[in-house]
Amino acid sequence: MVSVAEDRPLLLRALAGEDTARAPMWLMRQAGRYLPEYMAVKAKASFLEMVQTPSLAAEVTLQPLRRFDLDAAIVFADIMTPLPSMGVPVTFNPGPVVEPLRTAAAVEALRIPDGDEIAPYLCETLKLVRTELATKNVPLIGFGGAPLTLAAYLIQGSGSKEFEEFRGFLRREPSTAHALLNTLTEVSIRYLRAQVNAGAQVIQLFDSWAGLHDEDTYRTFGLPYHRRVLAAIEGVPRIFLAVGAGHLLGCIAELPCEGVSVDWRTSLSVIRSRLPGRTMQGNLDPAALLGDATSLTREANAVLRAGVGGPHIFNLGHGVFRQTAPEQVARLVDVVGGFDRHAGRR
Amino acid sequence: MVSVAEDRPLLLRALAGEDTARAPMWLMRQAGRYLPEYMAVKAKASFLEMVQTPSLAAEVTLQPLRRFDLDAAIVFADIMTPLPSMGVPVTFNPGPVVEPLRTAAAVEALRIPDGDEIAPYLCETLKLVRTELATKNVPLIGFGGAPLTLAAYLIQGSGSKEFEEFRGFLRREPSTAHALLNTLTEVSIRYLRAQVNAGAQVIQLFDSWAGLHDEDTYRTFGLPYHRRVLAAIEGVPRIFLAVGAGHLLGCIAELPCEGVSVDWRTSLSVIRSRLPGRTMQGNLDPAALLGDATSLTREANAVLRAGVGGPHIFNLGHGVFRQTAPEQVARLVDVVGGFDRHAGRR
Repeated sequence: MVSVAEDRPLLLRALAGEDTARAPMWLMRQAGRYLPEYMAVKAKASFLEMVQTPSLAAEVTLQPLRRFDLDAAIVFADIMTPLPSMGVPVTFNPGPVVEPLRTAAAVEALRIPDGDEIAPYLCETLKLVRTELATKNVPLIGFGGAPLTLAAYLIQGSGSKEFEEFRGFLRREPSTAHALLNTLTEVSIRYLRAQVNAGAQVIQLFDSWAGLHDEDTYRTFGLPYHRRVLAAIEGVPRIFLAVGAGHLLGCIAELPCEGVSVDWRTSLSVIRSRLPGRTMQGNLDPAALLGDATSLTREANAVLRAGVGGPHIFNLGHGVFRQTAPEQVARLVDVVGGFDRHAGRR
Repeated sequence: MVSVAEDRPLLLRALAGEDTARAPMWLMRQAGRYLPEYMAVKAKASFLEMVQTPSLAAEVTLQPLRRFDLDAAIVFADIMTPLPSMGVPVTFNPGPVVEPLRTAAAVEALRIPDGDEIAPYLCETLKLVRTELATKNVPLIGFGGAPLTLAAYLIQGSGSKEFEEFRGFLRREPSTAHALLNTLTEVSIRYLRAQVNAGAQVIQLFDSWAGLHDEDTYRTFGLPYHRRVLAAIEGVPRIFLAVGAGHLLGCIAELPCEGVSVDWRTSLSVIRSRLPGRTMQGNLDPAALLGDATSLTREANAVLRAGVGGPHIFNLGHGVFRQTAPEQVARLVDVVGGFDRHAGRR
């Protein structure tokens, strides 16, 4: 007889703190350009059209789950998705481009829309995907960008290797930066709550550019806002993702979230010792999927072994590269599925 | 009476392990686009022409020393400088671009030139600068790229945010990667020895992309080669620079070098505790120079305080941004010059 608890999706069990025998697994950017079926959709619609058309967004959200035995879906969207509702048009070329926002007046002029105004198409997508997944017992993840990462794009005006305009702005115009972060925090809360209301069962907050900052800067401009966003998400578990942030674990330890997702640079066993009681998510180098079968298996097993000792959600340290062969993802699913996390106990 | 030891340049004293009362100071990319006099030279010559014409390279090397009371010059060149002598043409657009090198045959075809063939113009520049600096008692730094960083550009074909082709190649073609790293190590040794013979008084090895890799990958493809290069430099102190490498300090601790230069992400006091006996170099965020006078002074003093407790060379965590106002650099020189590192002892 299967108990109710065992019926619960593995991902949610791991996020509830259960040290599961198999690591649940999903991949950042699992719906993406490495899949020929994704490229077939993309041939007929722009990235923005895909995100903003619920039938297309639901289709690409579900594509990787048809191919691979994954333990979660993540809704197809972008961290910049809420910005147009704030009065900031976004284009993609291929990364996001906005008119740089660098004055107090421009920050003051930002709209703070109601939750259901921010991205109604995304809520529709979430409902469609939930309906499709009802029989599969696979949970659906919603997400948003962390305020400090959204501010990086808004102030810089685009992605950047160094984000120097943004980093200089934080120093020259701290009060305007705080006003912007405050607005982004309020909108993020409304946006993520709307996703939960529409059916998201987990929320992941992406601080993709956390690694730009030293700890003092992060404590001033990142931590207070990220804490507020995470604290405002109720009813579903929260995962905080930070890239290049091995030096910020002291800050991350203060955030109210069930899971922490980290990149490949530091071993999960080291991260876990700094973040006791959290579910670890990660952290295979996405470049491992560009290796051969032998190197992929070796690297995946090293991540799996480092994840033993507490709850672990297997993932990459960052998104799937477009050059990835789908066969490599299938192989990775097999390796993770075949790893018994309790073997050492028997 | 001034002793001979006190006549010795402050930079060399700090690299010899002396806990000097004032931190010697220089800045990565101190000769660069933030200086109008540099732009005046650049208006008449391309970057490559500037590097390859000793009179121009010496001129821009010396420009920051005329404006600011700095404790070292660094010869004007690029980490890609040795590549043409190996049979790899390099263009700049504005970052380096090469024909991607991804086959065993292409690696096999690389030339290993004699030291004095690699960049004879650079040796000429070093001699010119030494002559000019003879009366100033300011030492001259030579430099090169670490083999793993050079391999990143060669295999990727250019700079890149993710260097995914390079990271995949290390996994798919490890023996070709090792052959390439071996060749780059041999050429680097010859190149850096030639710089010492021409008058370089310190050598800095730039591992600008160390931070791409996890520790296992770095131990396989980085550490053995970087150890060989550093061990082969005789007669002058060596500084190893690694960016984004807070997770690789265990590896860096194994390298034979007097100084370690780190980025701004981690406090120098933390780095020092992991690398006892080394001279710390760094680590002000270059974005601090884009702040105002108050924020710059506060951030510089925080770095200076973190550097107390052993030898410290004040520098940035990465190169000067082109948007930097020269007046900010002058202010920084004043702040560093006015900080008494022995004050707490009295």
